[in-house]
Amino acid sequence: MKKLKRSSRLVEMTQYLLARPHTLISLTAFADRYQSAKSSISEDLAIIKEVFEEEGIGELHTLAGAAGGVKYMPMMRESLALEIMKEICKKLEQPDRVLPGGYLYMTDMLGQPDLLADVGRMFATAFADRKIDVIMTVETKGIPLAYATAACLNIPVVIVRRDNKVTEGSAVSINYVSGSTKRIQTMSLARRALKEQSRVLIIDDFMKAGGTIQGMMDLLYEFKATVAGVGVFVESGEVEMEERLLEDYISLAKLTAVDMKTKQTTIIPGNYFTS
Amino acid sequence: MKKLKRSSRLVEMTQYLLARPHTLISLTAFADRYQSAKSSISEDLAIIKEVFEEEGIGELHTLAGAAGGVKYMPMMRESLALEIMKEICKKLEQPDRVLPGGYLYMTDMLGQPDLLADVGRMFATAFADRKIDVIMTVETKGIPLAYATAACLNIPVVIVRRDNKVTEGSAVSINYVSGSTKRIQTMSLARRALKEQSRVLIIDDFMKAGGTIQGMMDLLYEFKATVAGVGVFVESGEVEMEERLLEDYISLAKLTAVDMKTKQTTIIPGNYFTS
Repeated sequence: MKKLKRSSRLVEMTQYLLARPHTLISLTAFADRYQSAKSSISEDLAIIKEVFEEEGIGELHTLAGAAGGVKYMPMMRESLALEIMKEICKKLEQPDRVLPGGYLYMTDMLGQPDLLADVGRMFATAFADRKIDVIMTVETKGIPLAYATAACLNIPVVIVRRDNKVTEGSAVSINYVSGSTKRIQTMSLARRALKEQSRVLIIDDFMKAGGTIQGMMDLLYEFKATVAGVGVFVESGEVEMEERLLEDYISLAKLTAVDMKTKQTTIIPGNYFTS
Repeated sequence: MKKLKRSSRLVEMTQYLLARPHTLISLTAFADRYQSAKSSISEDLAIIKEVFEEEGIGELHTLAGAAGGVKYMPMMRESLALEIMKEICKKLEQPDRVLPGGYLYMTDMLGQPDLLADVGRMFATAFADRKIDVIMTVETKGIPLAYATAACLNIPVVIVRRDNKVTEGSAVSINYVSGSTKRIQTMSLARRALKEQSRVLIIDDFMKAGGTIQGMMDLLYEFKATVAGVGVFVESGEVEMEERLLEDYISLAKLTAVDMKTKQTTIIPGNYFTS
């Protein structure tokens, strides 16, 4: 690219970094790209780092040495996350969202790109220090949350199917019992979709007793993969402790009470904000 | 926020705009946010606009007058899009991707956030001048493409289910005949998922004769909604012209030949690049 003025270079470097989260970019690559001295590039990066961290939109990690460079990690400051989450909880409490079985209608909200970007950034912040190779979810409603998180962490997504109509070569299927409804269900994943020994972050939209997530964990066992973390958008607190199949997870919101008669629910920020 | 130096303000404005595509931000809002004169803000925006357009990453539309402001529209220059698409076509031609029925295994590629970001930007560029209220896709593989496009255009996504197990209140179901396999299938959408008169962009991963997309169009008719455009990632050219149900669509790649014996395919950039 042509040599830029300082002000233009700052704009260009900012967009370049934002478009490449969790990617190490060497100082040499920047110096070549902008035909500038590494010392100027370092000064620019210091300005960008300060703004990103001041605004709480992410961290700029600098690695010194020959293999050194800079890596942008999208984050959201907890105070802003909590503020946004309280707004989301208020929307989730709208009475016409209560569905039979104590589920919540939230498909419309999971269709909104700005909400998804915020939630993806919250999960990326919550799991920033874990070593993760891939994000797993089960169709259908967890999919946008998984992708929004993957975009921040720059890792791929695999989607577990709820049937065994996998047309993608050999597949592993398991039967699992949904913890709350006690019904036997099937989930499948194509053999080629996941490498052995992968470290997997499980993301889903809603958790009651945790049967679906336990099913995904059983599936991971079949692939000799390990669970690097579990993140759910909304957990239902309407579950007896002894029914809960899962202890170690992060929730962004918690449904604490449902009155099926009045269709009134109480939804509060989840354990990510309280633990 | 605290008053920033010029260089920091440029970084902050760049990230602020990039995080809010297709959103009108008034000069007054910027002037308040940065405690700066509108004239300084305008100068900064001129620099950002020049860099964005020089790099082909998007347009910055400025609207003059009292209701004026600036709007960032993510784009991808056609020459860069073609270069990226040729790389994608090469990957799609790997012989182990041919599935029974002449379908292509591309689930792994549709799990990659960087590929999705590129493809979403291509669709956003292709449909930039259309008036679109919502993006529609059918589960499962089209979903990430729909969200990647929605993120660029800042509009919501609705997902059509392939069964009628919609637990979200009353739903509209239609039967459709998949044009290539001639099998009768069902698709459904919850009544509350789509407002009447919506202008809808249909996005899907793969199109043979177009039966699935024709099904979505029939469903839109039931909602008194209209089709604002159709975008498919890969179209199959292995369809007789008289079998093709659909004429007006944009494809990013085209499967022109499959040899089931050698598992060799030929995939070229789609009609977006040639028409």
